[in-house]
Amino acid sequence: MAHRAELIAVGTELLLGSIVNTDAQILSERLAELGVDVLYHTVVGDNPRRLREALTLARSRVDIIITTGGLGPTYDDLTKQTICDTFGRKNVLYPELADWLRDLFAARNRPMAETNLQQAYLPENCTVFHNHNGTAPGCAFCEGGVHVLMLPGPPRECELMFRTGAEPYLRALSEGVIASHTLRIYGKGESDMESLLRDKIEKMTNPTVAPYARSDECMLRVTAKAATAEEAEALLRPAVDEVMAVVGEWVYGVDVDSLESVCVAALKARGATLAAAESCTGGLLAKRVTDVPGASAVFLGGVVSYTNGIKSKVLNVPQSLLDEYGAVSAPVARAMAEGARALTGADYALSVTGVAGPDGDGRGNPVGLVYVALADAAGATVKECRFGRRTRDHIRAQSVNTALDMLRRRLG
Amino acid sequence: MAHRAELIAVGTELLLGSIVNTDAQILSERLAELGVDVLYHTVVGDNPRRLREALTLARSRVDIIITTGGLGPTYDDLTKQTICDTFGRKNVLYPELADWLRDLFAARNRPMAETNLQQAYLPENCTVFHNHNGTAPGCAFCEGGVHVLMLPGPPRECELMFRTGAEPYLRALSEGVIASHTLRIYGKGESDMESLLRDKIEKMTNPTVAPYARSDECMLRVTAKAATAEEAEALLRPAVDEVMAVVGEWVYGVDVDSLESVCVAALKARGATLAAAESCTGGLLAKRVTDVPGASAVFLGGVVSYTNGIKSKVLNVPQSLLDEYGAVSAPVARAMAEGARALTGADYALSVTGVAGPDGDGRGNPVGLVYVALADAAGATVKECRFGRRTRDHIRAQSVNTALDMLRRRLG
Repeated sequence: MAHRAELIAVGTELLLGSIVNTDAQILSERLAELGVDVLYHTVVGDNPRRLREALTLARSRVDIIITTGGLGPTYDDLTKQTICDTFGRKNVLYPELADWLRDLFAARNRPMAETNLQQAYLPENCTVFHNHNGTAPGCAFCEGGVHVLMLPGPPRECELMFRTGAEPYLRALSEGVIASHTLRIYGKGESDMESLLRDKIEKMTNPTVAPYARSDECMLRVTAKAATAEEAEALLRPAVDEVMAVVGEWVYGVDVDSLESVCVAALKARGATLAAAESCTGGLLAKRVTDVPGASAVFLGGVVSYTNGIKSKVLNVPQSLLDEYGAVSAPVARAMAEGARALTGADYALSVTGVAGPDGDGRGNPVGLVYVALADAAGATVKECRFGRRTRDHIRAQSVNTALDMLRRRLG
Repeated sequence: MAHRAELIAVGTELLLGSIVNTDAQILSERLAELGVDVLYHTVVGDNPRRLREALTLARSRVDIIITTGGLGPTYDDLTKQTICDTFGRKNVLYPELADWLRDLFAARNRPMAETNLQQAYLPENCTVFHNHNGTAPGCAFCEGGVHVLMLPGPPRECELMFRTGAEPYLRALSEGVIASHTLRIYGKGESDMESLLRDKIEKMTNPTVAPYARSDECMLRVTAKAATAEEAEALLRPAVDEVMAVVGEWVYGVDVDSLESVCVAALKARGATLAAAESCTGGLLAKRVTDVPGASAVFLGGVVSYTNGIKSKVLNVPQSLLDEYGAVSAPVARAMAEGARALTGADYALSVTGVAGPDGDGRGNPVGLVYVALADAAGATVKECRFGRRTRDHIRAQSVNTALDMLRRRLG
């Protein structure tokens, strides 16, 4: 049976919203890979009574408890003593840790305040986890069939100690691995995926398929458990194929970063270049493409033509088109894309013109009406989008996604 | 007595580490300002039994429960039914929400899957919270002295609904009002603010002053409690003045949205226009300016000159400068800003050229070296920035912040 875990973060600064519980995300992701089912995250403040209650509840419902935070030298860090009290262990000095701390401070030429020695205390008979990024060691012990692991709060200390200390400890407990593939989708939502794949989602047990909503897109994760990574992969491959047969049309990539990274990679593979001409997206399309490291190999540049003057002067959009159809129109989108291509000499050019809101454009076009065009040597294609009365951010993001999706389909 | 709250996030994707519990951080910060003590954060998966247990425990130990997530239309979103079962309320159809959903889909020209109607169900006799950023409404009700608030999971939906729905609901529960002003700071960090204001932070009790770190900037919040809004404001005003006397130089605005919104407002006030020329920021500067609704009144457009060819051809940067100094240089930054101003006829032009990484520029310039220029009728000023070996996103964001801060100081 898979191990079941609860993560307990200790820190009033989390409850005040001063920091976000990054540790829980990092550890959950790693634990999923190890085949440990994380059932609960809990956050309590620096309050011994509430921590003790949380620990008591946790030991009744999971067999792995991982605490983060509260190992440092400061006054309000009472985690260790509370854990010792709850599990009936003594908090004892580990002389080798005291020596290590003294050496650490000596090497930094800094005097060591006596409070720092608190960090050399851990529950008796525990497995010590060394801290390679800080001064607070962590540990693990098992009491009554429940494994308790204590990790430091700062994310870079926590993450490294998990990798070097906790992960080997946990691997020794478990059998098997969990592996997954992520299908990234644009153009259909989470509920569409749910409807299209309902049978598979309900019937599949290993691998499983689950849809996840993202802010402007969605994804499907196919996950398998097996004895080895190879066996997990062997289970995954046919499941991914099966899912792709149903929804492949909307999948822009498997295990990829983003639509823009897929476009940059496809352009690189063809040795082709890209330019952009943007009106309502105001630079967001160029920004998204240049978010991808190495985009300079394929992206030549772009024009943000926020006024008709710039559209005609820089992009050579004929004034007659602007007069006749207005800036938010298919003919102008086409002329912008062709103009950007001519100006830069790029193989492909994308353009966007539309009404991102909150106000209309004065010509009666509704908020959310956007034209996206893609030009190449063969001419230009235009797509009309009606995103409706959504926020400006949403309309702009969807306009860029539509443009990138047109490009990846053309290059695909 | 202060209200005590528990935040319960529902979502297997949190337990798998696919996403971080941003909602808990956002809500905790806002609740602290409202004078609500947050005692616990809890995360459970899409599992009715565990959610029910978490709710049962929560109602025994706090008087405000706020759930996030699980309001969407998909199969595994069972939050609402479980909350209804636990608190003995019926889950009923709100016809006005069903109409609203149908209108929303009609406006987007998209067919509405029947599963979407689930979103129009809420516990009977609840206060409905409208969702201005998505399709899932939230709500609040009180049962046996415990207030239960249900908010959607996606952070931008959750945050907006908290502000527009939950916050007024919670304010109505407490006596007196809490009011605050937020001083937005660029160019100094949280720890600088802490040092500069230590005395005031420690001594002030009502109002209080607290610094908060943001990804690329920081802010100070001055908060007062009083019987009425007028009394709170009367307490706040001298406190804000006192803080401004110490750190005013770095405060770009009080209760403002962003550096870019301050710039757009200042340009509007002068009837002046702006253009941009970007290399390493690749459109981010233009994007940020056009994030501001109404930016079209002052922003004419920009050029993303990601290659030297575009810099010389479109922006008229002399080839001799590019050859002699390279694209990442003060003379080229100056020529880009002047070129953008000449091309567009704008009153002000900002330019950015630098090395955002992850690789150097082939001329030996280090990652993080960026030149930012501001041109107006009197000429151009250039600022050299060394952001160091940070992430590409960080360097690009800081480059844009530097450019906008130069402009707001010039206009200020």
